[in-house]
Amino acid sequence: MSGRIAVIGLGPGEARWLTPEAAGELAAAEAVYGYGPYLDRVPVRHGQARHASDNREELARAGAALAHAATGARVAMVSGGDPGVFAMAAAVIEAIEAGPAEWRALEVSVVPGITAMLMVAARAGAPLGHDFCAISLSDNLKPWELVERRLRLAAQAGFAMAFYNPVSKARPWQLDRAFEILREELPASVPVIFGHAAGRADERIATVPLAQARGAMADMATCIIIGTPATRIVAREGLPDLVYTPRRADAGGVERA
Amino acid sequence: MSGRIAVIGLGPGEARWLTPEAAGELAAAEAVYGYGPYLDRVPVRHGQARHASDNREELARAGAALAHAATGARVAMVSGGDPGVFAMAAAVIEAIEAGPAEWRALEVSVVPGITAMLMVAARAGAPLGHDFCAISLSDNLKPWELVERRLRLAAQAGFAMAFYNPVSKARPWQLDRAFEILREELPASVPVIFGHAAGRADERIATVPLAQARGAMADMATCIIIGTPATRIVAREGLPDLVYTPRRADAGGVERA
Repeated sequence: MSGRIAVIGLGPGEARWLTPEAAGELAAAEAVYGYGPYLDRVPVRHGQARHASDNREELARAGAALAHAATGARVAMVSGGDPGVFAMAAAVIEAIEAGPAEWRALEVSVVPGITAMLMVAARAGAPLGHDFCAISLSDNLKPWELVERRLRLAAQAGFAMAFYNPVSKARPWQLDRAFEILREELPASVPVIFGHAAGRADERIATVPLAQARGAMADMATCIIIGTPATRIVAREGLPDLVYTPRRADAGGVERA
Repeated sequence: MSGRIAVIGLGPGEARWLTPEAAGELAAAEAVYGYGPYLDRVPVRHGQARHASDNREELARAGAALAHAATGARVAMVSGGDPGVFAMAAAVIEAIEAGPAEWRALEVSVVPGITAMLMVAARAGAPLGHDFCAISLSDNLKPWELVERRLRLAAQAGFAMAFYNPVSKARPWQLDRAFEILREELPASVPVIFGHAAGRADERIATVPLAQARGAMADMATCIIIGTPATRIVAREGLPDLVYTPRRADAGGVERA
């Protein structure tokens, strides 16, 4: 009796972005683990145990879920968005590697979901329409110098960028510093999209030129997309702008070589 | 009567990864446009027109769908995966920008989907568990020199990487050249995941060290993920390996600074 753990992406928020696979795994689980606000999105099923934990306890949460699964149970671990993008899949596998041998015998299923940058991009148009990167701005798990270096290299490469974890109470200045670095590397006109709570009731999408981008425009529920020098804005009367990065490369990246 | 176009991501293949939003948009559309093999995945609905086109005719296909929507119709354009990632959303908006004024008055909805790299990552474990980038290896729409430059910068930044469009009949040597470049920039042991048709009946996932990666291991239906120097493989007796990139940064990117 080896047990099973499914690491499930809930997508951006509402049920219309929850895949049938994820819904099926949630319905079949005997117990669901996760950060409280994500757990609150999972429909309550009679007899299913729910274990909410704090945001910063990822490895402990993973360990508790794996220990439960190792009793032979079918356990679900939920993440917002996609579990493989700055979320629980890596933490669960890290815990398996470091944990008792029996955890390696568990059946592990990673269930993909719509990650925040895809939702924000869809709401804005197609700003990730060409080569792009995804960077967590949190320096909890890496030195801030590495974030700065990645920002410069990404700008020099001509990547569009998605920023996850752009700001928190413990990290108040990092996002403004990131914009400063990008202003040294990119034209002031590059569009910056602030996608707050995309796919939820309090969604707000706003686009400003890089010159005007400020850290105070974001909070913990924001995913930010930085365009490239080729990114374009199609204005429409009485309708939202469409922001897109053309499939044909501009020379922006090349000129900097 | 201004009409509506929904640009819809079908996800990796089977219906269990099609979101309820995408299913609803498909059911409501009067006409569906798309590349033939994607259109074949859409359930047939009586009275719904279907317009299949060839893979290389993206702008023409977008124009036909927009002209149809501008008659006041509700039109769907389908893409595999997510429409904003190397797919139809950017082509549709580009066509709107270049097209007649009435196309700007259309309601445009981009419906996100599970893109290939998320599916391949889920099948392998969590290889995109830290900062990463997505690069199209096609040089149809950008010079090959720009691809090479982005590969080097991405490796120097310590990004995991996802390669879309890795190979085609018209582009036989580019993928081997990409591996050559990466071997100059990264340790020979970095895991390379070949994800063929992930989420479909003929799915094959294989992981080899960068030293052994060859272009012949991929075809047009393959999405490739390149790990980082920190990416780890958890071997399991009688079960598939779990490949993951830890959330804590290694010093791989920094050491090269």
